[in-house]
Amino acid sequence: MKRQNLRTVSLILCIFSYLLVGAAVFDALESEAESGRRRLLEQKRGELRRKYRFSADDYRELERLVLQAEPHRAGGQWKFAGSFYFAITVITTIGYGHAAPGTDAGKIFCMFYAVLGIPLTLVMFQSLGERMNTVVRLLLKKIKKCLGMKKTNVSMENMVLVGFLSCMGTLCVGAAAFSYFEGWTFFHAYYYCFITLTTIGFGDFVALQKNEALQKKPPYVAFSFMYILVGLTVIGAFLNLVVLRFLTMNSEDERRDAEERASLKRNRDAIFLPIEDRTSQMNLIPLIVPSLCTCLCYRPRLCGSPVPSHPETLSCHTNPVYYNSISYKIDEVSLSTRDPTGVSSPGSTLSSNSPRCREHHRLRRKSI
Amino acid sequence: MKRQNLRTVSLILCIFSYLLVGAAVFDALESEAESGRRRLLEQKRGELRRKYRFSADDYRELERLVLQAEPHRAGGQWKFAGSFYFAITVITTIGYGHAAPGTDAGKIFCMFYAVLGIPLTLVMFQSLGERMNTVVRLLLKKIKKCLGMKKTNVSMENMVLVGFLSCMGTLCVGAAAFSYFEGWTFFHAYYYCFITLTTIGFGDFVALQKNEALQKKPPYVAFSFMYILVGLTVIGAFLNLVVLRFLTMNSEDERRDAEERASLKRNRDAIFLPIEDRTSQMNLIPLIVPSLCTCLCYRPRLCGSPVPSHPETLSCHTNPVYYNSISYKIDEVSLSTRDPTGVSSPGSTLSSNSPRCREHHRLRRKSI
Repeated sequence: MKRQNLRTVSLILCIFSYLLVGAAVFDALESEAESGRRRLLEQKRGELRRKYRFSADDYRELERLVLQAEPHRAGGQWKFAGSFYFAITVITTIGYGHAAPGTDAGKIFCMFYAVLGIPLTLVMFQSLGERMNTVVRLLLKKIKKCLGMKKTNVSMENMVLVGFLSCMGTLCVGAAAFSYFEGWTFFHAYYYCFITLTTIGFGDFVALQKNEALQKKPPYVAFSFMYILVGLTVIGAFLNLVVLRFLTMNSEDERRDAEERASLKRNRDAIFLPIEDRTSQMNLIPLIVPSLCTCLCYRPRLCGSPVPSHPETLSCHTNPVYYNSISYKIDEVSLSTRDPTGVSSPGSTLSSNSPRCREHHRLRRKSI
Repeated sequence: MKRQNLRTVSLILCIFSYLLVGAAVFDALESEAESGRRRLLEQKRGELRRKYRFSADDYRELERLVLQAEPHRAGGQWKFAGSFYFAITVITTIGYGHAAPGTDAGKIFCMFYAVLGIPLTLVMFQSLGERMNTVVRLLLKKIKKCLGMKKTNVSMENMVLVGFLSCMGTLCVGAAAFSYFEGWTFFHAYYYCFITLTTIGFGDFVALQKNEALQKKPPYVAFSFMYILVGLTVIGAFLNLVVLRFLTMNSEDERRDAEERASLKRNRDAIFLPIEDRTSQMNLIPLIVPSLCTCLCYRPRLCGSPVPSHPETLSCHTNPVYYNSISYKIDEVSLSTRDPTGVSSPGSTLSSNSPRCREHHRLRRKSI
């Protein structure tokens, strides 16, 4: 079975099992508590009904009234500040639902707004996240230099650790701030920040919904908006570092397979060609040339070692996120190109006794 | 200013302006209707208060009661089917909020569940989306062949059009189904499907919340779950086609810049090197070799034309999503590698009069 299909099928099975496990655990954790709450609520409703003797219609009317009035508790949800808050929850796909367009015109605009806004936001956060990672990488390198460490390379592990700590830090800062402003417990505020920054946005906890905060507390409103946007950037940076490469895996394999098919085809053709044409072709089998240039451009440290031929080795270079994570190494290594031993010099990796055709010979040897 | 920084700054400005415009429009569309609804609700509340003479405390109690009872209207939200529904809304980040964990244990598990589940789901939908695109591409190619069209290549425009139509189709099918099952208008059902499949999930319209559907209508429950998962795959396929490449732009540029810095450094070094070493280095300038192998492997159609040297030309090949969109072309072109003119043959593009060192000379000529 093709690697890409196998991976996709395993992922689907994985997700379904994950959903089944999740459903079982949520059932076990919540189901009983829910029945308890339900009984309590029915009992209270019974008491109030007996006390005031509602008609069934009046009670239904009262329910509708309370539910519709709920969004208005925060004051005007659709004045400019509220609308800005709503717009953020749309393009980031948080979608608390604390306010939802009530008019059909609002619903239509919301859909058009999301169609352009969501991809734009996605690209913006990934772009900003990547910039953040680049800055962090440079800072870490400088810190390592200042500390006089021998190895100043910033490894992927370093970056992932910093990313993880930044995410935790962002959540904790938010939890502290919102527990102070909203009067929630630290745990509930942390849960709110987590559910917001993962863009799940249940809406069971929503900031700026008390005491007409949207109108009366502009600094807190500004802080909340900035927190959401900065928080999403930090999460975006972490995703850019850890998850983004996995999103392009299948495309990667597709490209590699097509490349291999093409080169095999070329090999087959070469067998039926006259010797002169054959040499010209065999020197240029794409399986070799990319490995050569990959070695030269993206893995200077490996240039002393034989050119990798395993597809995995090729694939990892063609992932831009991988490039990003190693690009900073190239500067250092380029300094060593004058190295007379030629161990770390792309130039001298292909050196032979004769200066002319040295690379030609090397390629021939590999291509056979 | 560095291209990546410029792009990121423009994206940030773009998003902020987009938010401002959105806020202004939502304010204009919703603000007045909101005030109207508010007045009406206060009037109704006044009538009921006068009729039943609630004490202020009792009314607050009644409000709390109705709000807390609302999730229970759908029957048990946390039995297995409901928990499965909730688990889907967590890992897909839809997060309607029709049900949210009430216990602290549930909240904690929900957070851990999302941390692993969201990236896994993201990767699964992208992987599945890419597979869908590959199948669609092959189908389109076969259809074009069956129709006896001269050009059987499936262009990016073809794919985007098919992707767009699939998304619209999915939304319309969902709108028809949910308007039938939930008794919503087609427009409201379409709005529900859109808000669900974009993972915004306000929760103002939520399927399976009437007449204890979760317990009493298993086929409808299964349909709803499958609709959400299949719908998200279709959207994922479209994003894989259109948006994914933009997520890796900065990483791309970073890689290219590092590559150029390294090659320039190598050039500089070469000037101070003895002539023999210099030739060995100049043959191997990464700006040339990758363009050469890129040309050979990924742009066979261009092999007759001069090797591209503009960074943009390099960059477009190093984007895996780009590979994916062109990989299928390689099979066709590899058939033409025997072409004696060598115009479309990667092998013969570099042929010269002398069979030995022909590619060495070619590289030399390009590198100077």
